[in-house]
This record gives sequence, C-alpha cells and structure tokens, in this order.
Amino acid sequence: MGDPYVGARTPRREDARLLTGKARYVGNVRLPGSLHACVVRSPIAHGRLLGCDAKAVWAVEGVTDVITTADAAHLRLPCVNVLPGQRITSYPVLDDTIRYAGQPLALVVARTPEAARDAADLLDLDLDELPATVGAERALDAPPLYPELGTNVITDFAMGDEDCGAAIDGAEHVVELVCRMGRVSPYPLEPRGVVAAYADDELIVHISSQAPHHVREHLAEAFGLPHDRIRVISRDIGGGFGAKEHVYPDETLVCLAAMRAGRPVSWTESPGDRLTATMSARQAVHRARLALDGDGRFVAMDVDVLGDLGAHPGNTGASTFAVTATLLPGPYRFGRFAVRVRGVVTTTAPAGSYRGFGQPEATLTRERLIDEAARRLGIDRVELRLRNMLRPEELPCTTAVGQTYDSGDYPRALRTLRDLVQEAGVERRGDDGRRRGVGYSCHVETTGLGPSMDLKAMGAAAGGYESVVLRMEQDGSVVVSAGVVSIGQGIETALAQLAADRIGVPIERVRVLLGDTATTPYSSIGSIASRSLPVGGGALTKAALKLRDKLLAIAAHRLEAAAADLEVAGDAVRVKGDPAVSVPLRELATSAWRGWDLPDGVAPGLEERDSYDPTGYTFAYGAHAAAVAVDPETGAVEVEGYWVVNDAGVLVNPAVVEGQIMGGVAQGIGEALTEEIVFTDDGQPITDYLPPTTREVPDIRVVMLETPSPVTPGGMKGVGEAGTIGPPAAIANAVAAALPEIADRVTDVPLTPGRVWSLLQA
Amino acid sequence: MGDPYVGARTPRREDARLLTGKARYVGNVRLPGSLHACVVRSPIAHGRLLGCDAKAVWAVEGVTDVITTADAAHLRLPCVNVLPGQRITSYPVLDDTIRYAGQPLALVVARTPEAARDAADLLDLDLDELPATVGAERALDAPPLYPELGTNVITDFAMGDEDCGAAIDGAEHVVELVCRMGRVSPYPLEPRGVVAAYADDELIVHISSQAPHHVREHLAEAFGLPHDRIRVISRDIGGGFGAKEHVYPDETLVCLAAMRAGRPVSWTESPGDRLTATMSARQAVHRARLALDGDGRFVAMDVDVLGDLGAHPGNTGASTFAVTATLLPGPYRFGRFAVRVRGVVTTTAPAGSYRGFGQPEATLTRERLIDEAARRLGIDRVELRLRNMLRPEELPCTTAVGQTYDSGDYPRALRTLRDLVQEAGVERRGDDGRRRGVGYSCHVETTGLGPSMDLKAMGAAAGGYESVVLRMEQDGSVVVSAGVVSIGQGIETALAQLAADRIGVPIERVRVLLGDTATTPYSSIGSIASRSLPVGGGALTKAALKLRDKLLAIAAHRLEAAAADLEVAGDAVRVKGDPAVSVPLRELATSAWRGWDLPDGVAPGLEERDSYDPTGYTFAYGAHAAAVAVDPETGAVEVEGYWVVNDAGVLVNPAVVEGQIMGGVAQGIGEALTEEIVFTDDGQPITDYLPPTTREVPDIRVVMLETPSPVTPGGMKGVGEAGTIGPPAAIANAVAAALPEIADRVTDVPLTPGRVWSLLQA
Repeated sequence: MGDPYVGARTPRREDARLLTGKARYVGNVRLPGSLHACVVRSPIAHGRLLGCDAKAVWAVEGVTDVITTADAAHLRLPCVNVLPGQRITSYPVLDDTIRYAGQPLALVVARTPEAARDAADLLDLDLDELPATVGAERALDAPPLYPELGTNVITDFAMGDEDCGAAIDGAEHVVELVCRMGRVSPYPLEPRGVVAAYADDELIVHISSQAPHHVREHLAEAFGLPHDRIRVISRDIGGGFGAKEHVYPDETLVCLAAMRAGRPVSWTESPGDRLTATMSARQAVHRARLALDGDGRFVAMDVDVLGDLGAHPGNTGASTFAVTATLLPGPYRFGRFAVRVRGVVTTTAPAGSYRGFGQPEATLTRERLIDEAARRLGIDRVELRLRNMLRPEELPCTTAVGQTYDSGDYPRALRTLRDLVQEAGVERRGDDGRRRGVGYSCHVETTGLGPSMDLKAMGAAAGGYESVVLRMEQDGSVVVSAGVVSIGQGIETALAQLAADRIGVPIERVRVLLGDTATTPYSSIGSIASRSLPVGGGALTKAALKLRDKLLAIAAHRLEAAAADLEVAGDAVRVKGDPAVSVPLRELATSAWRGWDLPDGVAPGLEERDSYDPTGYTFAYGAHAAAVAVDPETGAVEVEGYWVVNDAGVLVNPAVVEGQIMGGVAQGIGEALTEEIVFTDDGQPITDYLPPTTREVPDIRVVMLETPSPVTPGGMKGVGEAGTIGPPAAIANAVAAALPEIADRVTDVPLTPGRVWSLLQA
Repeated sequence: MGDPYVGARTPRREDARLLTGKARYVGNVRLPGSLHACVVRSPIAHGRLLGCDAKAVWAVEGVTDVITTADAAHLRLPCVNVLPGQRITSYPVLDDTIRYAGQPLALVVARTPEAARDAADLLDLDLDELPATVGAERALDAPPLYPELGTNVITDFAMGDEDCGAAIDGAEHVVELVCRMGRVSPYPLEPRGVVAAYADDELIVHISSQAPHHVREHLAEAFGLPHDRIRVISRDIGGGFGAKEHVYPDETLVCLAAMRAGRPVSWTESPGDRLTATMSARQAVHRARLALDGDGRFVAMDVDVLGDLGAHPGNTGASTFAVTATLLPGPYRFGRFAVRVRGVVTTTAPAGSYRGFGQPEATLTRERLIDEAARRLGIDRVELRLRNMLRPEELPCTTAVGQTYDSGDYPRALRTLRDLVQEAGVERRGDDGRRRGVGYSCHVETTGLGPSMDLKAMGAAAGGYESVVLRMEQDGSVVVSAGVVSIGQGIETALAQLAADRIGVPIERVRVLLGDTATTPYSSIGSIASRSLPVGGGALTKAALKLRDKLLAIAAHRLEAAAADLEVAGDAVRVKGDPAVSVPLRELATSAWRGWDLPDGVAPGLEERDSYDPTGYTFAYGAHAAAVAVDPETGAVEVEGYWVVNDAGVLVNPAVVEGQIMGGVAQGIGEALTEEIVFTDDGQPITDYLPPTTREVPDIRVVMLETPSPVTPGGMKGVGEAGTIGPPAAIANAVAAALPEIADRVTDVPLTPGRVWSLLQA
C-alpha cells in the first residue's frame, strides 16, 4: 500500500478561506478601540532632518500621538546575515540623517485613518538637502554616505580559485559580458500591515510576516522586552516573496505607538510605500568572463559582482550577493572559478530579499555567457551545456565556492526540456513581422536553508532548524503545529498530506496550525529560502514517527501484540494482515490523554515534538526555455511559450509544486521584461511599475523530475523559488537568439521595449 | 544556600491585576459584534413542558435567536465521576421534563442584554405541573422522578468491614446520632459567565472555569466537534470552590448560540441563578453510631449516608458522598468501620462539588459522635481523641475504606491546638449573659487527586495527572505553562516560586501562563481537589530538573567542565566554588534556541515538558478549635475565637497557605451558622442566603506543621480545601459544650439562631 496523500494532487485546503474572503489577513483584524497610524516619509533622498514642527499635526481633531526621531532614537534593527567584514550590521528605526526618499521620519497616530493621513501631511519638516548618489558604480567614487566608514563599499570579499585569472588569460576563447539587473520589487498582493496591541505587559502584534518568530525576537531586542512578553500572529499572508522576511522600521514604530497608547494601533502600507519602503532587490552589475578551450570545455569563469544595497544593508544584510556568488557555477564543471563580491550603499531605498535571492542574477550572467560562447564558437547551445554539465555519477560534488551538490541528473533535465521545445515546434510560427527565438537556461538551486553552524559562520542571527509539534486529540484528530507560515505557497496542505501519511490517518482528520508564536514551536528563520517543506516537513516527518511509535506501543499493550506487527489504518490500529483485530484510535488517544492503561514507561498525553536541524544544504535544479517574439518596430518582447523541467526531490503535491513554479515564472517574466524601479539622478523613484498580467504570461508547461534528497528526512527539496530563477536568463537568451545582430549586447534586464528598441537602433 | 523562594512569603503576583481592576475575568471580555443571551428557567419544580410560544419574544426589537428544547435535544453533558452502579451517567442540556425550579428551558439571544432579558420574560410556557419531592428521606418513598428507573436511589453501595454491625451490637458503649447538613452554595464572588465566539470552524469559549481543558473536552463531545476545534480561555477566575469545575447546561447553550449566530454571544448568570442554577452541595443525612469499650477505645463506627443529589447527579456524579465515606474514619484507629452510601434524586437543583467535597460532612458526624461519647463517658474530649488517634509510627496505614494515609503526626496537631486554645484563655471571658464553649475537631484530608488508574476504577472521565511546559527564552527569562488555573488561590505565585528555585533564576524572570487550552498543556482534571500545587507543582518540579540539566549540559560543553561541577545562579551558569568562571544564561539560551554550538545529541531549543501522574494520593491533616458565645435569648451563635493547626507538607508560600486556610474557615463558619438554601414543600427555593461577613469571622490563628509528602515530587500536599473541613464540627462541638443540656441534639447545620433557640425551648 503506497502513500495515499504524498504525491497526490490534494486540493489546497487554504483556498476555501482565501477564495471566500475569510482569510485571516492583518487587514481583517479589527480590535476594539483601535487607533490608526500614518508614516511620514522623507521627500528627499539625501540630507539632514534639522527639526520638525508638529503644531499643525496636533491641531487636527483626533490626533493622539506624534512619534519623531527623538522618541525612537534608541531603537535599532539588526542585519541578520552579516558577511565577513560587513561594515554596517544594524540600522536605526528613525534617523536624523536621510539617505533615501521614503525613509520614515515620524509616525502620526489618530482615531481614524483619515485623520492620521491628513495630519501627517501637516508635519513641518526642516530639511537640509545633500546631493544624491544613484547607481552602484557611481557610488564607488562618490563621497561616503557614512563619512565615518570612509567608503560606500560595505562588504568586499572573494571566493574560489586564486589562479582563476591566470587560467582565463591563457585560454583559447574568452567571452566577456557586463550584465546589469534592474531593481525589482517582490510586490506581494497583500501590502505589509500591522495591528499592534499592548496590554497586561504583553505586546501582541498581528503582522503580515513570513517569519513571526523572527519578528518577535527582533522586537524584543529592539524594545528590550523579555521575549515572552511579545506574541506575533501572522495567520494568512497574501504573498511574501522575501519582502516580509523580517520586521521593518515602520512596523516597529507602530508597535512603539501601541505601547505608548496602551491601545491597539493599526497600519497598512500605502501603494506608494510598496515600491520604496518595502525592500526591493536584485539590482547589481556583474562583470563576467567565461574562458573555453578549442573543444568548448569551460576552462574558467570569473565574475565581479557589484551589488546595490540602497541606503543601508537590509535585514538580510548583503547576503543576497553572497548567494549569487555561491550559485554562479550552476550545474557545470569549470577548470577554475572565482568571484568577487562588493556591496555598496547608495541614496536609494534599502534592498533586501526577493524570491530567488541572488540566484536569478547568477543564472542570467552565467547562461548569457554560455549562449554567447556557443554563438561565437559555433556550437549548439544545448550541446555546449551538455558537454560541460556535471553528470549524475559525479555527485555529490563540491564546487569551487564550497557548495556540495547532493543529487540529481542535470543533463536529463536539459535533454527533457529540449524535447519539450522541439515537440512544441514553436520556431515554425507564422511570420507576422516579429522576429522569433528560443532561449534556454539551466540552474542549480540551494534549498532547505540550512545548517545552523554554517549560518552562524556567516554571522546569521539564527540557525536553520525547524520544529513541529504533533498532537493526536482524544477523538483521533491530529493537530500539526509548525513554525513555518502560510504565505500562499500551500504549505498547510503539504504538511497535512505528510502528517496523514506518516501517521496513517485520513487527511480530513489533520488540522495544521501556523503563524502564531504563542501556539507554534520556534522557527529560527521562517518561511523563506524554499525551506518550509524540506526543513519544516523534515521535522514533521521525525515527529510523526515518534507519534506513530507511541500509538503502536499503546496498541501493542492493549492487543497483547508486538508493535512491529501493527499498523495505523484510518481510524484504528490493527494487526497487519488481520484487520479484524484492531483498536480504535479514539480509544487509544483517550487512554493516552487520560493516563489510563499505558504500558510501563509511557508518559500520558499524545503529543510529540521534534526538530530537524539540517547537517547540509540540499540542491534542487531546473532547466527553463522561453520562446519569444520581438517586434522590431517597437522593441516589445512577447513570451509565446515557456517550459520548465524541475527536480525538487520528493513531490508531496504536484499541483502545488506546479503552481509554485508557474507563479515564479510569472514573476521572472516581469523581471525579464517589464518590472523596474527607476530613480532619477536626485534619487526620486519615477516608476510605472508593471508586473505581468495574464496577457504577458503564456501557458507554462512544467515537467517534474523526482530525485529524492539524500539529506532531508522525507527526501523533499524546496521549490518555492525555482520558478523565478530561470526566466531572466531564458528570455534574454531567447531575445538574443531572435536578434543575433545585437546578441552580445543583450545583457541587461528588464528588456523593456525602450531598451530593445535602443539596442536595435544602435 | 537554601531556597530563596520556596518557603518565603513572596507577595502574590496576581494581586496587582486583581486589585487594580485589570483582572481578565470573562465579564471583561468584549468582542466586537457580540450578542447577549438570557436563559429562560422553569418556574416550577416538577412537571412537563408541553410547549412554548416564542411569538412575543421575536417581536422584541433586537432579538436574533430563540433556542428551545427541540434545538438542543441532542446535547448531553456527562457525569465525570460515576460510582459503581450509578443509574444516571449523563443529563440533557434542555429537557421537556422539568425536575427543578430554575431548570433551563430556553435561551433568548438579542443585540443587547436588556432586549434579551425583556424578551425572555415574554416566552409563553405551557406547563403541566406535578407534585414536588423535597428532602432525601422523603424521596426514598416518593414516586420515582425517573419512572424508568423505578426508584429515586441513583447510587447505593457499602464500604468497610462486614462484621462492623456485630461489633457495635456487642460493645460496652454506643453513641448514636443523626446529623443533617443543609444545602449550601459555593457562592464565588465572580458569577459564572461565558463569551463564546465561533469563526473559521473554531469555537473560542471564554468561561469562568476551574478546568478549561475539561470544558473543551465536554463541549467537543456534546457538539461532536474534533477537540482541536475548541479553544477554552479562563484567564482569571474570581473564585470557583468547585462550582466552576465543569461546564453547565446554560453555558453549553451559549456556545450553541454562538455557533448558530456565527457571532460572539455573551452571558453572565444573574444573582438569582447563583443559588439555583449553579450547583450547590453538602445536603445529606448521616445516621451514625460510635461504639467504645470501657477504656474509651473506638471499637467500631458505622454510618448510613443519605445524600441529596437534586434533580440529577451533577458533573461529578454522586462522588462527593463517596469521598464522605472514604474520609469518615479521620485520624483515628477503629476496631471495625463500615459505611453505606445512597444518593437520591429530588425535585431540587442538581448538587455538585464544593470546596471540601464531602469531607466537612464526614468530619461533622465523626467529631460530634466523639464529643458526645466523651461527655457520656466523662472523659476529656481531647484525651479521648488522643487515645484513639493514629500515631506517626503507625503510618503509612490503610484504613478500612481503603485510604493509605502517607505521613504526618496527627497527635502533635491536636496537642499544639490545645496549647493554643489554653494560651488564649477564652473560657474565662466576662459574663454578658451569653453561654460560652470551646469545640475541637480533627480530620485527615485527601489531596493531590490523583492516580489515573484509581480514578478510572471510579469511572472518572479523566486521570489525575498534570503537565507543565517550561521554556527559557533567549533572554534568559522563563515561561511556565501549566494546565492548572488561577482561581484566586495564588497558584501563579507558587508555581513561579517553585520554578525560580528549581531552575535557579530570580523570580522576576519567571512568567506563568495559565488558563488557555491553546497555550497550556493538557490538564486532566483542573484546579480542584487541592491538587494544583501538589500535582501541577510536581510536574513543574520534574520539568525544571530537565531544563536545568539541559542548561548545565550546554554550559559544561561551553566551559569544558563537568555538568556536576556547575550551578545555575541568577543570570549565569557558573562553576561551583569559582563564580568567576561562568557563562551568561542569555548566551546559553540563545545558543540553544538558535541551534549553535550544542553538545552532541542535544536538540535545539530550550523547552521541557513533563507530567506528574501520581501513583497514590497524599493526605494532609488538621485540627480546628472554635470558641463560641451563644445568646440563649435569641439562639444567636458568635464565633469568638478560631484556631487551626494544619499540615500540608512542604510549604511553598506560608502567606498564601494561611490565606487559603482563613478563607476556608470563613466559608466553614457560614456553613456552620448561617448559610442554607431552603426549599418549600413544592420545591421553591426561599432563601435569604447569608455568607459570613467580617463581623461574623473572628481573627483566625493558623499554625502550620510541615511533614513532606513522601508521594509527590517536591513534598507538597494540597491546602485549598483544608480550611473548610473543620469549622462545622468544631463550631457544633463548641455550641454543644456551651449548652450541655441540649448537647446530644446539636447535630444539624447550619446552627441558625432559630434552630438553636428551638432546641433550647424543647
């Protein structure tokens, strides 16, 4: 008898409430007597706040509090992933020095949202403006934004082979490209929001967060409160994508306001905030070289990564650029490999995490280099990739940048992809004046973050383990309580499937509790980094074995049988092969909870908890292909076909996995073609931000391979980010294929109509 | 270095909120959009509800629901302690057959409490009245209230020596008394109340309850809901005294109303409800004989206990009378001992639990018999007691009714008491026309309920274990989460003291979470039966050892020392004898939670849970003395002095213990002198209920002995009920001593002025 649930397309149980307006978003939290907050943000990108006059604010009917820098000077938030030598490791919640347009300068609290907004407009700011610094390359030579540091380079380190440069210098062929990635926004459908209430010495924070346990930790440290005096609740999250990984200055101010008021305070970011105050990501410049021998073997590759941190490192510090570095080699064999990473500050909004976390950038640079090399050497681009790709028998394999790829068949993914594209026959589409091309990209993806000690070595604030509590109630129903959260990714359903199979009960009897620090076990990182299922599910797998063992031990005692001869089946424990001899789960569970008739040494209760602290990372991988049509008159690029072959280990729910990948591809298409936050030279964002709609996203064909992870309990690898990693590279390669005359200049994303048209004109 | 907290008079931490209006009583729970309920109760004691017309109810503005018997016919509540052969084991929430005045017949729900009350008055009941049956003795011969049972005797069993009657028949002296105990009410200051909310398939019930986990269980079973779909919250309880041990029909109806409405429904019992709908207790008739030889040795004793259950057994069934039976022998040696117990139904409100639970009744009967025997034999009553009392070297000792007294020095308690009374010199008070006397009583008390298997043998619905979760947060603060609840008894402070000492941290770092099924571990019984500290504190003691061991193991790894050489001291773990070598708790706790640098085999996290499932009961004991003045003109009895010597094992907080005993004595004085719920012959309560005020309660002198329990971890015995057990006996003996001419007729409580005056006239 196989697993009835793991591997099945079980409908997502969270959808019933999400689709019927019953989701428990922060915006739906209404507490009696709530006040409302509005953040006052800096209109200038760089300068000093010399003072602010709140007289007019207080004159507005209903205003109850005005929090300015003096009130919050003591509050700082940490960078949780601090790279070696990183020069800024925390940042203030409010600061008199302004380093980006949109920086919070004050919080106005009032009895109605309207009063708060009206009053916030009246805060009289006395500003001394300074010149802005926009763009990472310009920042290298600009006056330091933090004069005490003497430089705008906040982090600078190298990885890989020291003799890589020499290998490139001596190689037969060298391809060099400079790739620029635009700044994009995670742009979750649900804006960030907080409802904070302070009563009985306890701060209760409803917040749209991917990591409520982390929020609790950071607020406790910021406010100097014992951790247990803070409860953080994040029941349903309408998308996070990394943007809701940690707590923000504005969110911290709302908590401060609640503590000052002794009443609940409610706040939601405005649409404008979402593009400035919510951390954006990806902006970087890669100077990259790929060296090949006469047979097209990859002799060496080096990359200089220059990342734009914005005004200060975000919550995850500069680690997104470190992940770029560690995943740059992808699924290939290189004779030598080296990377240098620099993160610089600029007078733009701080950058942070975004689904993919440095990996789409790494993939774009590497895969563009390979396509360009194939073009120059006259080798088929798929053949060139296959020639240099790590074969399954070479795994496990540790790369020059220290990643140990655990398992997989990378060539099979690419060959499968090529077959899919060929079957689709897209290159034979009719001629409508547009020029067509197909592009490929391959990647290896780090998932299942991650080993606590590794993370500590990185200076991370928390290890990478997850915990799960499993309780079987007296009626035989099962409650799963986990530290990971439901951010729309379907984790609630996947954990229910796992629990049902690993214990042996119908899925209808399983309830999953997430997103409340008071009722769920500690999660050291949260639902980020494609880790909820491989790490959280790993903990669940371990706990379920314990629960099942306890059930079987009690049943064995009751039935006078050996536990090994018994199995949990539906609503009873029965003798294998003799289903007539059984004892109902309800009876066993009642007996366990009430402490009756238990075998010697078995404690009362039927609740097990376990943690899974990974000893190593696990690595998923994938291959993407895009077919595009480019209108040479306008430069507009349309994605006409998209194919993904992905291997994320054991598939718990193929429908959820496909949905995750399709959503990620859609975001990747936006990043490749339309989405970008642009700043004027004086640091003002001037963005008409265009996430793709159903018109821009074609049907996406997803084929899953399934190589179990040898690392995680249950064999799952993560899949949350997979979809986002390939599209910029595949689409840029497709555009280059469609327009061979400008192929070597197709290096920057997004490939907006304006950018493509300009390339064609040049 | 001794314990800094255990044994100290640490101020009660709960008092800050209780005394400043910040207690989290149900009445303070305000949920947006709440509806309000009013219970319609039967005006007659016995009959049939033929129908009810709600037209006029619905016509009241704001009425949203009317729940009548047809809507709740399927809902039943269980008797959790079912005695062998007990004929009724559950009862309906609503019933067309009426068996007491005040029985719920319907629930009216409206937008305001006023509308609900006004509308409830308009429900038109069509009633068919039948004759009432009032009084347990009358019920023996009355037509059966449950015709299908053929009798009003619901339970009937015997315990003890079969040849006891023969021993009495052959004895030199036999004293025979018939003692009658009035029906009294636990009468907590905070009325019962419920705020129930149903949303997202979850029923959240704020209820003033001593056993929230039990409430959850019973509601789940009544409604057929999975247990995990119900959360019960009982944060602060303004007294329970047994009345709030389980869930009531009216409370269940409020939950049903919330489920029907999909909105919160709020209800509080009315002052009138408290004496009828809230379970009362104690009413019983004891026919008792004590046989002595010529030296005053107790040859034998037998008692016929006839208990009045009211209309049906309450939540605890008839077990209160069983406890009377098992504690009737008290601290004495008897040649033979026997008891018969019958519980009968009458057309009065159901009887239930009340602090003391059968033990004040047992003590009254036994101690009156002994005083009467002393008078008749001309032996000093204290000497007679000492002559027959079990000596410390005779313990452990199993009585004829199966109780194994574990430890104590009963004669020492009585001798200490006599010395106290003699020092006070009360018998030499001036002559104001009143007649004075002193009375003594001794008892052994069962506490620490109790062994799960024993309770199952009694048919109880739950075992007697308790669980505690102890968490040390990253900042070194400690959170205690326990299944017992704060009913005013000071358990929050006592658990904090225990945790602080057993782990080794300052008490200011300890927070105690109680009273929420979502955040506290399962409690199989709740805060009843003087068990919160011996059983809950026992679990805490075990969990604290585990937490401390884990801390020391991590510190040993860090300090490269042996764990045995280390100790927790304040905010660090240090080497014993070398305090300079230490590691801060904050550092150890952070390392544990974040999964860094832990010794092999140590899981991340710093949270331990343990249960304590007693293998046997533990027995406290005490001796009480009362000095009274009786006004022969009016029959009024004044208690002029009161002394208690009590031994409850290890004292965690002497101030809390003394407070518990004084409060119990006050209730006992009420029971002895003024409190009684009286019914007319047609079953109507006609009560001017008079709990004692500060004018009726004298200064009470309490002296504590301290014999550690050999049974419980930590050595604590319970003390919550101790104060209530002695007063009726001591005061009745004092009245008998003051009025020797009527001494043999001083058998019934309360000894109201009317009753004493009548005895003096007869």
